[in-house]
Amino acid sequence: MKVLFLNGPNLNLLGTREPAIYGKMTLVEIEQSVRDKAASISVEIEFKQSNSESELVGWIQSSRGSYSVIVINAAAYTHTSVAIRDAVSSCGVPAIEIHLSNTHARELFRHHSYLSGVVKGVIAGFGKSSYLLALDAAVSLNAGS
Amino acid sequence: MKVLFLNGPNLNLLGTREPAIYGKMTLVEIEQSVRDKAASISVEIEFKQSNSESELVGWIQSSRGSYSVIVINAAAYTHTSVAIRDAVSSCGVPAIEIHLSNTHARELFRHHSYLSGVVKGVIAGFGKSSYLLALDAAVSLNAGS
Amino acid sequence: MKVLFLNGPNLNLLGTREPAIYGKMTLVEIEQSVRDKAASISVEIEFKQSNSESELVGWIQSSRGSYSVIVINAAAYTHTSVAIRDAVSSCGVPAIEIHLSNTHARELFRHHSYLSGVVKGVIAGFGKSSYLLALDAAVSLNAGS
Amino acid sequence: MKVLFLNGPNLNLLGTREPAIYGKMTLVEIEQSVRDKAASISVEIEFKQSNSESELVGWIQSSRGSYSVIVINAAAYTHTSVAIRDAVSSCGVPAIEIHLSNTHARELFRHHSYLSGVVKGVIAGFGKSSYLLALDAAVSLNAGS
Amino acid sequence: MKVLFLNGPNLNLLGTREPAIYGKMTLVEIEQSVRDKAASISVEIEFKQSNSESELVGWIQSSRGSYSVIVINAAAYTHTSVAIRDAVSSCGVPAIEIHLSNTHARELFRHHSYLSGVVKGVIAGFGKSSYLLALDAAVSLNAGS
Amino acid sequence: MKVLFLNGPNLNLLGTREPAIYGKMTLVEIEQSVRDKAASISVEIEFKQSNSESELVGWIQSSRGSYSVIVINAAAYTHTSVAIRDAVSSCGVPAIEIHLSNTHARELFRHHSYLSGVVKGVIAGFGKSSYLLALDAAVSLNAGS
Amino acid sequence: MKVLFLNGPNLNLLGTREPAIYGKMTLVEIEQSVRDKAASISVEIEFKQSNSESELVGWIQSSRGSYSVIVINAAAYTHTSVAIRDAVSSCGVPAIEIHLSNTHARELFRHHSYLSGVVKGVIAGFGKSSYLLALDAAVSLNAGS
Amino acid sequence: MKVLFLNGPNLNLLGTREPAIYGKMTLVEIEQSVRDKAASISVEIEFKQSNSESELVGWIQSSRGSYSVIVINAAAYTHTSVAIRDAVSSCGVPAIEIHLSNTHARELFRHHSYLSGVVKGVIAGFGKSSYLLALDAAVSLNAGS
Amino acid sequence: MKVLFLNGPNLNLLGTREPAIYGKMTLVEIEQSVRDKAASISVEIEFKQSNSESELVGWIQSSRGSYSVIVINAAAYTHTSVAIRDAVSSCGVPAIEIHLSNTHARELFRHHSYLSGVVKGVIAGFGKSSYLLALDAAVSLNAGS
Amino acid sequence: MKVLFLNGPNLNLLGTREPAIYGKMTLVEIEQSVRDKAASISVEIEFKQSNSESELVGWIQSSRGSYSVIVINAAAYTHTSVAIRDAVSSCGVPAIEIHLSNTHARELFRHHSYLSGVVKGVIAGFGKSSYLLALDAAVSLNAGS
Amino acid sequence: MKVLFLNGPNLNLLGTREPAIYGKMTLVEIEQSVRDKAASISVEIEFKQSNSESELVGWIQSSRGSYSVIVINAAAYTHTSVAIRDAVSSCGVPAIEIHLSNTHARELFRHHSYLSGVVKGVIAGFGKSSYLLALDAAVSLNAGS
Amino acid sequence: MKVLFLNGPNLNLLGTREPAIYGKMTLVEIEQSVRDKAASISVEIEFKQSNSESELVGWIQSSRGSYSVIVINAAAYTHTSVAIRDAVSSCGVPAIEIHLSNTHARELFRHHSYLSGVVKGVIAGFGKSSYLLALDAAVSLNAGS
Repeated sequence: MKVLFLNGPNLNLLGTREPAIYGKMTLVEIEQSVRDKAASISVEIEFKQSNSESELVGWIQSSRGSYSVIVINAAAYTHTSVAIRDAVSSCGVPAIEIHLSNTHARELFRHHSYLSGVVKGVIAGFGKSSYLLALDAAVSLNAGS
Repeated sequence: MKVLFLNGPNLNLLGTREPAIYGKMTLVEIEQSVRDKAASISVEIEFKQSNSESELVGWIQSSRGSYSVIVINAAAYTHTSVAIRDAVSSCGVPAIEIHLSNTHARELFRHHSYLSGVVKGVIAGFGKSSYLLALDAAVSLNAGS
Repeated sequence: MKVLFLNGPNLNLLGTREPAIYGKMTLVEIEQSVRDKAASISVEIEFKQSNSESELVGWIQSSRGSYSVIVINAAAYTHTSVAIRDAVSSCGVPAIEIHLSNTHARELFRHHSYLSGVVKGVIAGFGKSSYLLALDAAVSLNAGS
Repeated sequence: MKVLFLNGPNLNLLGTREPAIYGKMTLVEIEQSVRDKAASISVEIEFKQSNSESELVGWIQSSRGSYSVIVINAAAYTHTSVAIRDAVSSCGVPAIEIHLSNTHARELFRHHSYLSGVVKGVIAGFGKSSYLLALDAAVSLNAGS
Repeated sequence: MKVLFLNGPNLNLLGTREPAIYGKMTLVEIEQSVRDKAASISVEIEFKQSNSESELVGWIQSSRGSYSVIVINAAAYTHTSVAIRDAVSSCGVPAIEIHLSNTHARELFRHHSYLSGVVKGVIAGFGKSSYLLALDAAVSLNAGS
Repeated sequence: MKVLFLNGPNLNLLGTREPAIYGKMTLVEIEQSVRDKAASISVEIEFKQSNSESELVGWIQSSRGSYSVIVINAAAYTHTSVAIRDAVSSCGVPAIEIHLSNTHARELFRHHSYLSGVVKGVIAGFGKSSYLLALDAAVSLNAGS
Repeated sequence: MKVLFLNGPNLNLLGTREPAIYGKMTLVEIEQSVRDKAASISVEIEFKQSNSESELVGWIQSSRGSYSVIVINAAAYTHTSVAIRDAVSSCGVPAIEIHLSNTHARELFRHHSYLSGVVKGVIAGFGKSSYLLALDAAVSLNAGS
Repeated sequence: MKVLFLNGPNLNLLGTREPAIYGKMTLVEIEQSVRDKAASISVEIEFKQSNSESELVGWIQSSRGSYSVIVINAAAYTHTSVAIRDAVSSCGVPAIEIHLSNTHARELFRHHSYLSGVVKGVIAGFGKSSYLLALDAAVSLNAGS
Repeated sequence: MKVLFLNGPNLNLLGTREPAIYGKMTLVEIEQSVRDKAASISVEIEFKQSNSESELVGWIQSSRGSYSVIVINAAAYTHTSVAIRDAVSSCGVPAIEIHLSNTHARELFRHHSYLSGVVKGVIAGFGKSSYLLALDAAVSLNAGS
Repeated sequence: MKVLFLNGPNLNLLGTREPAIYGKMTLVEIEQSVRDKAASISVEIEFKQSNSESELVGWIQSSRGSYSVIVINAAAYTHTSVAIRDAVSSCGVPAIEIHLSNTHARELFRHHSYLSGVVKGVIAGFGKSSYLLALDAAVSLNAGS
Repeated sequence: MKVLFLNGPNLNLLGTREPAIYGKMTLVEIEQSVRDKAASISVEIEFKQSNSESELVGWIQSSRGSYSVIVINAAAYTHTSVAIRDAVSSCGVPAIEIHLSNTHARELFRHHSYLSGVVKGVIAGFGKSSYLLALDAAVSLNAGS
Repeated sequence: MKVLFLNGPNLNLLGTREPAIYGKMTLVEIEQSVRDKAASISVEIEFKQSNSESELVGWIQSSRGSYSVIVINAAAYTHTSVAIRDAVSSCGVPAIEIHLSNTHARELFRHHSYLSGVVKGVIAGFGKSSYLLALDAAVSLNAGS
């Protein structure tokens, strides 16, 4: 079993970006936590970040056949990208949408997600734990439960 | 550590209610899964269901001082109850909103939640696993991570 | 064949409540008319009223296996209750929505019904006759026509 | 007592038109059912269909003095015709709006009816029985109940 | 100079139709008033009524070359007919929109007119006088003032 | 019989203000035309202009007992002033709303008038003739026709 | 003279619930203030709280004949309950809507009240004083002023 | 302690203006009632009315340092004036919004108030008593309760 | 193979009607172009125009069994006719919607089409070529590609 | 070259009014800064403030022929005054809209400006510097660049 | 003559992506069909695909002088990209918008196209034939017909 | 002091792109003007353009520590990019939003800016001067005025 973690625009700034909202942990630290947990349950992961909508689209497209589940924190593109939505619904790999913050407690434009309609489930608001919970959720999806 | 799991209207019908959407597992079976996992990580849980908005409000009010975290699947009341929202924001206990199904892939009126604005996080779309993930999320909230 | 007639909030006030809109007949008198007609066509009926959303949900849930058709005048809850909608769509018993008044000729918020999307049909505006017509409609639904 | 049944556009296609929505019965067969029932309760009926908005307007206008009640299935014109609404509210004959299907469970644009605000009542969703119930409703309206 | 007065659906009912709104005068009496005034100022008029959208469209189309001004009370079609709007904007004859009642003091759907955007001016709310004022307005339009 | 003509903000600029929309005639010239016509039919008129909402409100308030009809071109205040609307509906003098241009063929915000709901009628789009037609309309209102 | 004070969901938490918004006074202390003032002006009061929509509906229904005025702080149900609105408009007892906080300075969904359309008046934003002012208002309503 | 009562446009017409909505009492009589009550509780008042938005803005601006509380019935400007809102939020004197009628039971455009978001509280619907209650509310605000 | 070309209201005016938008070619000239092309590829065509919604409905209804494809330029009825939409979705013949002009670059009300949801495809903006392209599209639809 | 600086309602309170939003500088100090800069580049300025919509309209009207550019901070009237918009578009003098604060980061009703559609450009959010930048912008407009 | 065919995000997945909606043909096969047809009518074509909004923008920009017509299937960017719209309206080359599926029969967010307002015409719903028809349309545009 | 000027999609076309809206000056010429002015006031500048949303995001991210102020003309991305908004609000460098044209006088979709809520100020409508004014504004921001 192999899980692809995709991170959207500005998540490379984590730790410096608005720590009141996103916390002080960097994306590298989050990746390490995910890697540690994945190793402990014998799941392979890939962990990537891009500010580019098309790069994210490309990674999603090429996940077919290589990954069992996609976990995606599309960040700003959650609210504006039909292209990523279409990639997710076309690639044939089940996906999980995650967010660090509780997007529904923020600006109105963050309440709508183009992704939610095509993913299996959504996990939002738990900071780093959103990633760790998604790993468990991916395992459970894969087990067909 | 003690976690209160609250279930809203019609969840007592699980297993018979629209299995294409909600699956074939009953609420009792879900409760058992949660109890098993909780026991294995030494967390106490309470698991309740009510069709009554006011009974749910009452349970939330009296959670203060007795529980560390509330996990709530408010079902239909998610979309219509300001009273439950106010109880959650007033009770002083952090809460997690969960759903069996991916509410954003269903009818438009299920896309809005009065709860989302006052909870710590949201987990939706993983069926029984939404409950188990929420237990982990509750532990992580309690640990202050 | 057995038909369950459910009446929502404030219908117990009929005869005193805004007679210009709802007429002077009491709910007891309407029930008697329905009983008389049902007897004449050998249909069993149950006739209940509650101001409580959860009690109505409970009655709908327990109709499965006991009734062939539900006739429901959900009154105010027509416009605000997703819980009753979910109960109707989950209980497995076909339902008919009725109203004493023509709700579309009243305040704008009465033009929307959460029930209409999950019932077999709607009868509105005929006062007591809405109930009697619904009895006929229930028979015809049951006959599979 | 004399009741005018009016049928709007495309209802002449019944039986062939989208049978999953409208059933397999033709308009002629429905008319026969209505005639049979009307005869059995000694009510005269007229039964007409037109695809033309103005012909429907004309029939409604000339109903004054000739009919006790109009039963109208305006079909597509329900949602677009102010002219038919005005004819109904001007002709001085009480009217009943009917539909074969449950229009509120279909496309959003079928949820609004220009007619509902000016008729006595609405019956929708019972297929052929919508017509038979309307005949009873017409009798009851005429009896002043 | 020749002015075409066009009257839309249900205006043939004037005098009987909702006299509280439209007054007790019949369309024939209005026509006579218009004819009298037109004669006194040496203007030729044509005065027509139809319940049919397409007949109105046809009359507007054939006005080119025959009339100097069209005065149109499109009644219900004011609010629903793009076809009449297109005919008016295509026919090359300047048009005046009139209404017996003050449409902006009535139902919300009567506040929007498809015609207003393509006519020279609008006169509404003066009953029969709306027609007589429009005759003067037509003369003044024709005089190029 | 005495008619009060009120003119709102920027109408004192007529002749210089956007002549493509409002024409080249000044307000003084329009007043003269109205005076000439009024004299010819033995009607007294008063003709005023103000850029001030409160001055217009004051003039409307003091019209009671002094004028038979108010003709008001409220210009920009048509679309923003509830105060003028309330003055018109409170003063007890019937009012006619006029506009030089066809407001419905201009910017969207000019399509709504706070005045329309409380006046007897509306005349728009005829330039100077809007004033002359309103004088006739005032006479006809006063005659009770 | 007898006044019924009704309090909706979560008001039993006053003093602990979000004191920045609702203040530190408990509902019991507010009741005592109201009782003291009522005693001083010889008015009888009843003071009740419920988290249950149906219990509130029941209390309103049974107020007829027993109370001169209802003062209701429906809290969360202000924004969601048509049932309470219908009870108020049906019970025949004049009602006053009150709020501790200024609801119009809070979340958008608190700006709409189903009650406002059927009560005599509204008092909001004065904390405990909202209750005391309402008592005076009730006296003044009862005196017919 | 000194309270400034401000009255907006058309309130000088009270007693003659739409008495079905506003009652038969004049503004002078209301002022006298307020003066009598204020005298009895040793509060100084100033009582002013203007039809001019800018005069009201000016009075609010100059209240700083001279008054403890402003009571404002902004009438029509309630719904249209950001300038008065800004004056209230800038002047540093706590304000109370009042209305004679229950604005939420009237036209839709009267349901929105630019003032509500910047005042301490709102009292609406009690006729003259709205003023007297506001005087009490002002005293209570001043006492810091 | 046989293709039915239907043309809606005002298209008979082509060549004279707003040539800046619709070009200078008449409908007869367009028909001739279509006939020439159809002959060259051995396809039979019928080419009709009507200003009447019901006549168009009738032609669509009777196309079943006689035509392989309908090409329809419903003109103004595109935006207002549910009856034509229902006829198209009921007749069992695949349809293609065409427009001379690019409707999305015109007035807002021309951006919505009742037809688009029930046709196979849409071709808009190519003037006469819209018809010729539709003929090719019809052939390709018929070939099942 | 001569530039007219106009300031709308409540700007006379600058320095005392909500300094968190508007800063501590008074309007007199801003005027002095503008005068100093204008003198240094040999531009004449006039600097005025009014709380009155009609006074502002008057000043704009009389700018024709006397000023090269108008710089206007219409404050609250930005969002509510069509009269000022019409004055600006009618006066023939190019105008620049300025704001001290960034209006798009404040309440939703401050996001819409009636002025923006008729001015040359907008400068917002720079406090006193908004005025100084506008002076430069005015010079550059005048130079035709 | 030279035509540029541009394909947006996820179209490289054609044949595997949701074949129920998009068919089983790959983009390479579509390109071959277009090439074959273009060759047969002696038109040069270029055929490109990109998932990148900026790459598409770049290709459109550089089409000036090199191509006679752009045919663009912007896929997901149709609904979200103002940048592509601006590139099309700026590049000076006439463009045709195409879609494989009938976007108006799909999700609501696919009904709006930023492109439609700036292209010559739209062809949607014909699968591969949308491309072939667009080639014909391009030829006809180029011929100036 | 160092200022980063960022230019979004299609601005590289300036001078050829719709000169009626954007003027005839190229971006290189604008850059030269900015450079000249910056040199004259001893400010360092960087001036960049990209059609790529992610490249713009990257430049904004890396501005931290290197630049005192960002001046950004995001062009089309102003209206669609949450990613750029998030980059601006995360990078810790104050930003100024500029536009060549007055976006509020253009299409409705250009009236909304995702950037406005997170920048210090906005300058729009002055063509090249928008850049020069922004340089002054940047200096003034940096000076803390």
